[in-house]
Amino acid sequence: MSNQKPSLPKGMRDFGPDIMAKRNYIFGAIRSTFEKFGFQPLETPTMENLAVLTGKYGDEGDQLLFKVVNSGDFLSKISLEDFGEGYKKVLPKIAEKGLKYDLTVPFARYVVMNRNDISFPFKRYQIQPVWRGDRPQKGRYREFYQCDADVVGTTSLICEAEVFLMVAEVFDKLNIEDYDIIFNHRKILNGIASAIGAEDKFKDLCVAIDKLDKIGIDKVVQELVNNGIAQEAADKIRPLAALKGNTKDILAEIKAFVSGSNDGLKGIGDLEEILSYTQKLSRSNDHLKFDPMLARGLSYYTGTILEVKVNNVSIGSVSGGGRYDDLTGNFGMTGVSGIGFSFGVDRIYDVMEALDLFPASSIVSTTALIVNFGKAEEEVALTTLAQLRAAGINSEFFPDAAKLKKQFNYADKKSIPYVIMIGQEEITANQITVKDMASGEQEKIKLKDFIDKIQTKS
Amino acid sequence: MSNQKPSLPKGMRDFGPDIMAKRNYIFGAIRSTFEKFGFQPLETPTMENLAVLTGKYGDEGDQLLFKVVNSGDFLSKISLEDFGEGYKKVLPKIAEKGLKYDLTVPFARYVVMNRNDISFPFKRYQIQPVWRGDRPQKGRYREFYQCDADVVGTTSLICEAEVFLMVAEVFDKLNIEDYDIIFNHRKILNGIASAIGAEDKFKDLCVAIDKLDKIGIDKVVQELVNNGIAQEAADKIRPLAALKGNTKDILAEIKAFVSGSNDGLKGIGDLEEILSYTQKLSRSNDHLKFDPMLARGLSYYTGTILEVKVNNVSIGSVSGGGRYDDLTGNFGMTGVSGIGFSFGVDRIYDVMEALDLFPASSIVSTTALIVNFGKAEEEVALTTLAQLRAAGINSEFFPDAAKLKKQFNYADKKSIPYVIMIGQEEITANQITVKDMASGEQEKIKLKDFIDKIQTKS
Repeated sequence: MSNQKPSLPKGMRDFGPDIMAKRNYIFGAIRSTFEKFGFQPLETPTMENLAVLTGKYGDEGDQLLFKVVNSGDFLSKISLEDFGEGYKKVLPKIAEKGLKYDLTVPFARYVVMNRNDISFPFKRYQIQPVWRGDRPQKGRYREFYQCDADVVGTTSLICEAEVFLMVAEVFDKLNIEDYDIIFNHRKILNGIASAIGAEDKFKDLCVAIDKLDKIGIDKVVQELVNNGIAQEAADKIRPLAALKGNTKDILAEIKAFVSGSNDGLKGIGDLEEILSYTQKLSRSNDHLKFDPMLARGLSYYTGTILEVKVNNVSIGSVSGGGRYDDLTGNFGMTGVSGIGFSFGVDRIYDVMEALDLFPASSIVSTTALIVNFGKAEEEVALTTLAQLRAAGINSEFFPDAAKLKKQFNYADKKSIPYVIMIGQEEITANQITVKDMASGEQEKIKLKDFIDKIQTKS
Repeated sequence: MSNQKPSLPKGMRDFGPDIMAKRNYIFGAIRSTFEKFGFQPLETPTMENLAVLTGKYGDEGDQLLFKVVNSGDFLSKISLEDFGEGYKKVLPKIAEKGLKYDLTVPFARYVVMNRNDISFPFKRYQIQPVWRGDRPQKGRYREFYQCDADVVGTTSLICEAEVFLMVAEVFDKLNIEDYDIIFNHRKILNGIASAIGAEDKFKDLCVAIDKLDKIGIDKVVQELVNNGIAQEAADKIRPLAALKGNTKDILAEIKAFVSGSNDGLKGIGDLEEILSYTQKLSRSNDHLKFDPMLARGLSYYTGTILEVKVNNVSIGSVSGGGRYDDLTGNFGMTGVSGIGFSFGVDRIYDVMEALDLFPASSIVSTTALIVNFGKAEEEVALTTLAQLRAAGINSEFFPDAAKLKKQFNYADKKSIPYVIMIGQEEITANQITVKDMASGEQEKIKLKDFIDKIQTKS
């Protein structure tokens, strides 16, 4: 075991100090926004009983769950016959726990287990890693963070409006300017299915039109026909792909298109109400973009659905969500409606890097490094250090009297903006020499003045 | 699978909003202290290759590691013969990954893998959960957080002093006043072993004297004798248990006791230097308590060791650590010295609860709730909400026009300090009615004045 060359499991990552600082900058923007809107934090364990997880994510999802071997003699319940039946039969007998696959199912489990203590509507946010045994590839990891916020126990459309506002506030904080919050309503999709006479092919319709951006309208129509929808019916979808103009205009067109469907009109009515709420709450509906062809895969959603895309970068959606009306039915508690959405931190990170949006200050942790000149200057250095910290300034004293070059390299690598030198000359003058690492400029000043300067800046 | 009653795996916990708020209060104090001292965050994955983890925690530790079943057909590498050889032989063939058991081994792995990019001394902190398959019992969980800080790549004793200071700063922030930072030095223990002529029984000596507080000096001496140390030699330890007075006095006595041992004198010298550093950095050595009988189990430590105990609560040590001189030898990189310590958040939480130290403000998330009176008052309520949030005040509008009692209960349960009512009367007067939930008092004021009041407070 000794002297091995250690490695990381595939699809897993370390986050070193620089990356952590940038990630924390993003998490901070998300967390403070969630809290400004009254959401409270929840954490659930890494492991859940497989009985809770299995069957919630489809067969493929079940395959991708990481399972944890039972403690102790995990083979004690297995006979040789079991063993002969293959790994799928053996697995449930040797593993009762799995790592969580998303934050929604554990949240639903929490709601059910704590239903008598929760005061509804329950607004919770959850920022935790999840695990999926996907084949690792660029931008796809086996461990990644999700940042979810959900309100459950109310059908009020104010919640939809607030989701839109929270997205806008996070992007505002992160200085991401050019993005669209694309939204639709599942009931409008029902209305479209009904308008073209394809109610019985609803799922196929959703799957096909969701690809519009990628494959174009001709191939969408073709796919509908391949799935058994008559050519004439499928062709009726064409005008929807050609819709242009602002959200208001498109809403009006779709309203006419789905006018024969109660569901369709209900969907339109909801969206109009939500837009009136966002208008009242933010005085602007910039970034909001209605797209009747947005479908999102999940059958789970029953009302408004949304997806957020940043323009001018080729990175998929960075946030998404929607309203559901049965969060906890799987666990025997029905009628829990809510709306939830999630930020993809890895993708937001990539967007921020691509657009060069991380401010220099986001990676600063230590503000000042005091150079170590050796024993003779040590005491004044330590006293200075104590004063800096007492003033709330993150500071360090280089622990060894190493070569100056090494100490400056250390400051440089750690993005420390100020290096303080206190040699005999400074001690005599009761001053410090401060080097501004960005400009390269040096000045001799009183410690007190340096502290004032830093405190004024922050 | 449907309609099951969901449950949590044993030894695992959900952290609901109130507990999260209190835990975040503790994490915040720890994190800000680590950063003030120039430590930077690191996160390593939940899973590590078992090759990295195994053999680092003793046989018992290896047993307690949670192992993750390999993805896909995990039985493909197993023959019927393997199966007959029992679970210990089968395990390595079906599981290559495990959940991390502590933060130190993953940190060591990180240092080795990134040795060329790290600018030493490397000061990192890490706040993450770890997993151990211990039998769950009161206060012991299978998933719990560790909060570690380590400096590696320097032998400077300033680091020891800064560890003491960080403990004091965290406790200061948390308002924990009555505690001891108990410290010793492994080389002093060597000196003691040598002074009583038991160098060859060093481990037994450490194990025995570490129990002094619990079993008393007679039983410690008995245990030494049972382990093959001569009665006369074992008795020599007695005066050490009777040492009284302040750290300075005890240091002087021990210095005499170990004066025949170079190791012992080196230990004493180190501690004297560290105390002179803490004195310079903090102008006080309160809370620092030298205890020559402190041993700490781990053979891993080679210099200063420490343990922190809060007085007047019967909760074990809440923090501990020490200096080591070979962090990464297991991974083929020798000579990496450093000092690390760790806070036990669960125990600190219990201490804070026992001493009633969580301030009311620590559980406030939303500052103001606006009551929902219905459609007629909705627009003004939403405009007010937008203004509160624009002023940086965490606020909510109850999403439904529910009964007043329900809305107030919601505020109460969520510890929201202010409830705002805006009915027709308030709309006409261009005012808001604010109920202070703690005092029960109500007042009609201008929104602007309420905002000023809150901003002044925070």
